[in-house]
Amino acid sequence: MQTNKKVQVGIVGGTGYTGVELLRNLASHPSVEVTMITSRSENGVAVADMYPNLRGIYDLQFSVPNIEQLKTCDVVFFATPHGVAMSMAKALIEHGVKVIDLAADFRIENLALWEKWYGMTHTGADLMTDVVYGLPEYYRSRIKEAKIIANPGCYPTSILLGILPLLKTGLVETTSIIADGKSGVSGAGKGANVAMLGAEMSESFKAYGVNGHRHQPEMVEKMNEVTGTSVDLTFVPHLIPMVRGMESTIYATLTQDTSQEAIQALYEETYASEPFVDVMPAGSLPETRMVKGSNMCRMAIYRPAGGGRIVITSVIDNLVKGAAGQAIQNMNILFGLDERLGLNQVALLP
Amino acid sequence: MQTNKKVQVGIVGGTGYTGVELLRNLASHPSVEVTMITSRSENGVAVADMYPNLRGIYDLQFSVPNIEQLKTCDVVFFATPHGVAMSMAKALIEHGVKVIDLAADFRIENLALWEKWYGMTHTGADLMTDVVYGLPEYYRSRIKEAKIIANPGCYPTSILLGILPLLKTGLVETTSIIADGKSGVSGAGKGANVAMLGAEMSESFKAYGVNGHRHQPEMVEKMNEVTGTSVDLTFVPHLIPMVRGMESTIYATLTQDTSQEAIQALYEETYASEPFVDVMPAGSLPETRMVKGSNMCRMAIYRPAGGGRIVITSVIDNLVKGAAGQAIQNMNILFGLDERLGLNQVALLP
Amino acid sequence: MQTNKKVQVGIVGGTGYTGVELLRNLASHPSVEVTMITSRSENGVAVADMYPNLRGIYDLQFSVPNIEQLKTCDVVFFATPHGVAMSMAKALIEHGVKVIDLAADFRIENLALWEKWYGMTHTGADLMTDVVYGLPEYYRSRIKEAKIIANPGCYPTSILLGILPLLKTGLVETTSIIADGKSGVSGAGKGANVAMLGAEMSESFKAYGVNGHRHQPEMVEKMNEVTGTSVDLTFVPHLIPMVRGMESTIYATLTQDTSQEAIQALYEETYASEPFVDVMPAGSLPETRMVKGSNMCRMAIYRPAGGGRIVITSVIDNLVKGAAGQAIQNMNILFGLDERLGLNQVALLP
Amino acid sequence: MQTNKKVQVGIVGGTGYTGVELLRNLASHPSVEVTMITSRSENGVAVADMYPNLRGIYDLQFSVPNIEQLKTCDVVFFATPHGVAMSMAKALIEHGVKVIDLAADFRIENLALWEKWYGMTHTGADLMTDVVYGLPEYYRSRIKEAKIIANPGCYPTSILLGILPLLKTGLVETTSIIADGKSGVSGAGKGANVAMLGAEMSESFKAYGVNGHRHQPEMVEKMNEVTGTSVDLTFVPHLIPMVRGMESTIYATLTQDTSQEAIQALYEETYASEPFVDVMPAGSLPETRMVKGSNMCRMAIYRPAGGGRIVITSVIDNLVKGAAGQAIQNMNILFGLDERLGLNQVALLP
Repeated sequence: MQTNKKVQVGIVGGTGYTGVELLRNLASHPSVEVTMITSRSENGVAVADMYPNLRGIYDLQFSVPNIEQLKTCDVVFFATPHGVAMSMAKALIEHGVKVIDLAADFRIENLALWEKWYGMTHTGADLMTDVVYGLPEYYRSRIKEAKIIANPGCYPTSILLGILPLLKTGLVETTSIIADGKSGVSGAGKGANVAMLGAEMSESFKAYGVNGHRHQPEMVEKMNEVTGTSVDLTFVPHLIPMVRGMESTIYATLTQDTSQEAIQALYEETYASEPFVDVMPAGSLPETRMVKGSNMCRMAIYRPAGGGRIVITSVIDNLVKGAAGQAIQNMNILFGLDERLGLNQVALLP
Repeated sequence: MQTNKKVQVGIVGGTGYTGVELLRNLASHPSVEVTMITSRSENGVAVADMYPNLRGIYDLQFSVPNIEQLKTCDVVFFATPHGVAMSMAKALIEHGVKVIDLAADFRIENLALWEKWYGMTHTGADLMTDVVYGLPEYYRSRIKEAKIIANPGCYPTSILLGILPLLKTGLVETTSIIADGKSGVSGAGKGANVAMLGAEMSESFKAYGVNGHRHQPEMVEKMNEVTGTSVDLTFVPHLIPMVRGMESTIYATLTQDTSQEAIQALYEETYASEPFVDVMPAGSLPETRMVKGSNMCRMAIYRPAGGGRIVITSVIDNLVKGAAGQAIQNMNILFGLDERLGLNQVALLP
Repeated sequence: MQTNKKVQVGIVGGTGYTGVELLRNLASHPSVEVTMITSRSENGVAVADMYPNLRGIYDLQFSVPNIEQLKTCDVVFFATPHGVAMSMAKALIEHGVKVIDLAADFRIENLALWEKWYGMTHTGADLMTDVVYGLPEYYRSRIKEAKIIANPGCYPTSILLGILPLLKTGLVETTSIIADGKSGVSGAGKGANVAMLGAEMSESFKAYGVNGHRHQPEMVEKMNEVTGTSVDLTFVPHLIPMVRGMESTIYATLTQDTSQEAIQALYEETYASEPFVDVMPAGSLPETRMVKGSNMCRMAIYRPAGGGRIVITSVIDNLVKGAAGQAIQNMNILFGLDERLGLNQVALLP
Repeated sequence: MQTNKKVQVGIVGGTGYTGVELLRNLASHPSVEVTMITSRSENGVAVADMYPNLRGIYDLQFSVPNIEQLKTCDVVFFATPHGVAMSMAKALIEHGVKVIDLAADFRIENLALWEKWYGMTHTGADLMTDVVYGLPEYYRSRIKEAKIIANPGCYPTSILLGILPLLKTGLVETTSIIADGKSGVSGAGKGANVAMLGAEMSESFKAYGVNGHRHQPEMVEKMNEVTGTSVDLTFVPHLIPMVRGMESTIYATLTQDTSQEAIQALYEETYASEPFVDVMPAGSLPETRMVKGSNMCRMAIYRPAGGGRIVITSVIDNLVKGAAGQAIQNMNILFGLDERLGLNQVALLP
């Protein structure tokens, strides 16, 4: 293999959990080379000093972000707080560099709505025509042509994959959708935060954001876009006392009597060729550990007691399919690579 | 205080988690004396050898259950597998001994339904007229006169307390009720079971029993009974990777535009004089650790985005208000004692 | 009981874990009344808003610390960062108020050594003659007369109780002592700290402070004091991925051939009348959950393979016997109360 | 790549945790093919049904072990209870099939000692000359020629790697060695066992096997063999409330004044060319999560306060370097493959 053919990768803001996950997964990718990783606060620190699991694997140091240097990359991942990618993306895409944003800057097309939920001014309105929502299972053909990928939120990934087949076919009432989501604490990031201390979150469970969570408008917009309807979604997230993993239990009311078998078949057909969606056999009970450290989404579909309600349970690793893994999957699509490269990790069980 | 005035308590089948919880809580009860605790398999073993947290507190040994000896008690708790209490209750109540069953033998009045869900013949049909469902907040006056108390299941306790005020007042559609329940693993009991090994359940989250769980018919029967209607309930339980605690998120659709404030007021009024139900202020986020080791149920009520759906989040300790604590609360009612005796433990936080 | 006879208690700095533990345990104490609890940052906040497990139990608010108001108390607990108690204690004891410091200000008599380990100037040299080290099992008679109690560190409590019987009798080499300590994360307190995030400490185990930990000089000074010798102690603390609990495994080499039975007998005799030390039967394996939420120290003594080394395993709840519970025990001694008052919590198991 | 060049692998007894770990790691091995996996109890069950993390990766079913079929393999791993490998190994090695036993059958050369600790008759005395202890860092040259590999226990792996450099050079007293080991619960295997229930082991910590653990004689024999001396080892294992990971803190007394730097240099030199031993920089604090899911052993060396005692802290993943990963490493050596093949997993952090 010729080194000069490798995709040159830059990572902006790599000190958080999505940063280390990009590095962990890319370590096994045969066709990329991570050439720079930036952090203002950690300038000069070796990546392996911050993340000792990478000792002996990466010889990189964090550097101060420099737009000129980033232009030498083929693709730049933003693993930054909200607002950073929109300020740097234009210079990069004008130079032909692909941008994949793991934050929320480009996830919602309705910028007024975005500004309401994220509490800041959106400065990248002119970039939005170059943006594609990076959920490959529903936007793959457009991703191939995109300049900027808005990598989806973790809850949206698990919930959209779970409910869209039913919504697209009109089999469920658009006003009936309830998504009860549960996430491990790594979803809250690596910032110092009393509520996320081990002594606070361990051995406890709670709902949060009941009055509204930023992933709700993101999901509703994509549901409406994919289905051409207007969906009413109730979404309640919860915090699980564990590090990694996300489970979403989705409830929807059938518009017509449809057999469990027909719905199972619909899901199996929908995702038959998808490398990272696993529709488990009827009666299965997906557990988050079945996807821990891997890019898989596994799901099962139920029609309890043959009633009018469908229940879908969908699990992902919030840091992989819910963040860094999906970003790499999008990169692979952007560069015409096998979508599975760098994403062959088997889930760690037990 | 005269020792001969103390309530004489027997416990049948005390080797499981509800058994040790009865002992732990009763240790601080000033008006009872535990005189016997039975276990066929552990006959002769000191309680404190099996449960070293009780060293120095109880000097009891497990003994083989003996109906004649049990008749010397004032009340007998059954912390046994399903089917045991119904075989021994008749002899006890005929002798004037009160029976409190922590298993499911008497929870469902419709015995055909019971037999379907529990997979055994119900041999206590003639006892059912002496049974009262032991949810004090809704059955207190009848509990006072009961001979047999059917101590509610853990999920039913958290869900019925959460939804009954809305169902009783007709404020929500009876066909709209969805309860997404989550339980710590102590709910599965102390039996050896590969799926409940620490190496299996830790750091993972899953739904289970999606096609049907025994607590669903129990809840529907009580909802119908209390409200005089016919409720359609979708219930999905989940397993949390922690020992103790249960959270239920309950969704219901309003029948009419009702303000968040009005619903908050309804709940506060409903439970104003209840010692073990805490309607938290609007905007609160109950966590299971806020009730760990205590008999409290804490809850909060939401109307997200002012929409048509109400969301209630309700937390209990599955072993206390969801089992042993509620059983003691029922005992206190039966014997005319202060309902709070033996139940003054402050939740262990952190 | 006459309310005006109750001991009036003040707590300075009650927002941390030792603060809430003082309140939790004192809630069941029949002879005290908590009259004030201070916090500069949380002035005006209800205690029950910060610690919802205390809802319905305390009607207190945090207030700014005020020395004049504190003088109205009979006893003031300092649950503050190091350095605070020494600045306020003098005014209080001159007024006849007892001081119990849960921080380290008064734990080491050698103030030069203290200053080296704590990195600050000690401003209370003139107070040291009024100080007694609050390990009741070894200092009870002096505690009764003390004005200031230096409440021991958590590791010192578990290790001193474990090793002192052997050291006092000269049965082990004073140069052979190794203490391998392990603590749950609540020991690190409630401050925001990336290393203590749930996503960082969960499902991982590590040694820390190998080159030196502040509890080492504290222990050596007390070992020397109690035994009149000069002890060489190697101490390595470790972090357990759980909230509460501390286990210390202590290794020592026998000076002479002494039977396992003789050593067991020595320990049983030493602690026979101690309400909060439980020497478990030979062959027992203490677990931290056997003391969770309680003020007990449980231990077992081994002589593996009849060799020359003794192994002691000693468990406490780091927040109770290792902090707030022991402080209350000291208070009871100071005021001539039954040492067990307020400390009758049975450990929460499972 | 030609399929007929791949090493044909059989796994006997693959239903436990070491079995699934063999499969997980071998999935990324380019030069092997797993052709059979046996289990009497699960005959006919698809591997992916028992271990859903392997869905889509293996199309194997468990089969009844059949010695004739196993002879078609190049190597057979035994992931079985103690006693199975010794009963089947002879037929296999006579046929030229290499045997790697992950159980203890061949770990101790002194068979009388083995029989004492394992409580069964050893039936493979004639095989012992064909056995090599599979700790590559100390037995690599002999492993290359072995017919049977005794894959080391998990505690021995972490402790021998940590202490042998000091013992080999005579820098520490052979009578001074204390190893305080701590293991996650996956080390106890997948058998149903009340003590390993999540509700029992979570949020608790304990020592076990204080009077004697089977890994103690294994370690002593290898220490003696490698150093030519007679070592006195005190070993106390502990159970950590987590799934994966093992930490050993090892204490030893210097025979002469040797600087921290010199010892650090000794360790770095000893392991300079080892792909799976990482001597971390002085002052580092290895955490088990730094090796979770990987075959690395990471360690740090301390001389606290410049005293006479050396402290080593050594971490491995008990299921990888402590079991399946080391077995694959041994296989790679046996077949002249790059030792790192199949073992390139980056530790999962967080």
